[in-house]
Amino acid sequence: MRKASKSSVQKAGVGPERMKVIRDPTKMQATANRLRGEGLLIGFVPTMGYLHEGHASLLRAARKRSDVVVLSIFVNPTQFGPHEDLAKYPRDIERDEEMARQEGVDYIFYPEAASMYPEGYQTYVNVEQLTRSHCGVSRPTHFRGVATVCTKLFNLVLPHRAYFGQKDYQQAAVIRRMVKDLNMNLEIAVMPTVREADGLAMSSRNVYLSPDERKDALCLHESLQMANDMFHSGESDAKKIVKAMRANIESKRSARIDYVSIVDTDTLEELDVIRDKAVVLLAVFMGKTRLIDNDILCRGTARRAR
Amino acid sequence: MRKASKSSVQKAGVGPERMKVIRDPTKMQATANRLRGEGLLIGFVPTMGYLHEGHASLLRAARKRSDVVVLSIFVNPTQFGPHEDLAKYPRDIERDEEMARQEGVDYIFYPEAASMYPEGYQTYVNVEQLTRSHCGVSRPTHFRGVATVCTKLFNLVLPHRAYFGQKDYQQAAVIRRMVKDLNMNLEIAVMPTVREADGLAMSSRNVYLSPDERKDALCLHESLQMANDMFHSGESDAKKIVKAMRANIESKRSARIDYVSIVDTDTLEELDVIRDKAVVLLAVFMGKTRLIDNDILCRGTARRAR
Repeated sequence: MRKASKSSVQKAGVGPERMKVIRDPTKMQATANRLRGEGLLIGFVPTMGYLHEGHASLLRAARKRSDVVVLSIFVNPTQFGPHEDLAKYPRDIERDEEMARQEGVDYIFYPEAASMYPEGYQTYVNVEQLTRSHCGVSRPTHFRGVATVCTKLFNLVLPHRAYFGQKDYQQAAVIRRMVKDLNMNLEIAVMPTVREADGLAMSSRNVYLSPDERKDALCLHESLQMANDMFHSGESDAKKIVKAMRANIESKRSARIDYVSIVDTDTLEELDVIRDKAVVLLAVFMGKTRLIDNDILCRGTARRAR
Repeated sequence: MRKASKSSVQKAGVGPERMKVIRDPTKMQATANRLRGEGLLIGFVPTMGYLHEGHASLLRAARKRSDVVVLSIFVNPTQFGPHEDLAKYPRDIERDEEMARQEGVDYIFYPEAASMYPEGYQTYVNVEQLTRSHCGVSRPTHFRGVATVCTKLFNLVLPHRAYFGQKDYQQAAVIRRMVKDLNMNLEIAVMPTVREADGLAMSSRNVYLSPDERKDALCLHESLQMANDMFHSGESDAKKIVKAMRANIESKRSARIDYVSIVDTDTLEELDVIRDKAVVLLAVFMGKTRLIDNDILCRGTARRAR
């Protein structure tokens, strides 16, 4: 992968002052083809908007390594289940545009659902094994929607590299697998989870939490720290670690566990014994709001959870 | 779509004498990225090899409109059912290479199955409604395999335009739908069916036919001619036309009908009454060999079947 050159940014005549919003998919693809034709490196951050510091960190990573940064904002209907929060998913396009401008975004791709899924639409990308466990159990069509919309967005934006957050660990694993399996012509970069000062992983859905739920929601991060401590103190029995985590989470009044699981970092297959590396995945309902978080356990590295 | 320029062919330094065979998918994609970077128009003909005059016509169309012509030869395992002819599908790579050279192919992409579907492979592209009828009934995973391998090949070869034969009408409809739905960055060109002197549509599977089956196999083309004649004589009742076609086919000793169907040219939905346009699709077993053919009925145009 080539490195971005400052001179080619100037060549493109794009920059923070010139940020453009593109709504039409055909125009997005034509623009991307033109940028590629000029030899420019395209960095891409796909989002559902309502941007927070986690998204900003992805935009900064993209800015550093690309000539042109494209941000997409699209609350993708196909990744929501019939009883999920599609209609009430938080939106604030003006604030998003302002943050994008501050992070040096060149193009916001902000399509309408009807232009992404016109009448007669019928094509879906399925990553099979990886999407059946964990979030795929309670959200059976979610990853089909994610894989499909990412395929569409990659084809429209034509990025050299796309940036995802580690917070959605299973999503990142699914996208990486899809890109590899379908030989997609781009790289996937997965960036560290960004947390609030008290440790809660940033998420657009955190706005749903009541004050009590917000307090109890710390149990996600706390239980991950607990897992990390146990692992680095020599515990390698995954069941024992999961049991301790569950006890911690279940002690909170508003918490209801969806899953707590220690798995292989690539295949997401459940582990009994943790050897050198694993990832702890969890999903917990705080009241009606479902939150996810994760942490990688890795022997020989400094502890990651703080 | 830009037109190919002769000067850019020279710029690429490729031509019939320099035809290259690429086996490694990574190398194919790197080559395609380089060609794209040079501003060259890539025309692509995906095949399963054992080339005949139908494939040659696609290569000629590609040669006329591209700077660089890529032919892929890959007997794709995922589009064969468990009891189909994957193992005995006819192969002759030396003859294929010779024909490719004569047609001015620049690159043959000839991957091994293990490099296209390595261990852990699990991603598939599904076009839904269009693949459930017709060939999708007797070959339930066929189009999933076709859509998946075409997605992979498009991502590896990065063509501006890919060429398919009208003989596989449903396949072309599925690919066109997929390209549109997933916003793939290429055009699909569908070229007319090429026939033997007596009317049999060219197919690599024709080599399976015994002399008697080969004679009886003319019923596919004959019945399409019959449909065309009835339509142009004013018949618009699809059932009546299908009935006459079935009677013709059933009069042949080695023929067993899979389907005979008159449908909308885009959605492939069954029609009762033919208005301005329709397509007649048929699949017939000649002994153990399943053959397909089709013809478009279109008011106000000259008759197509000869």
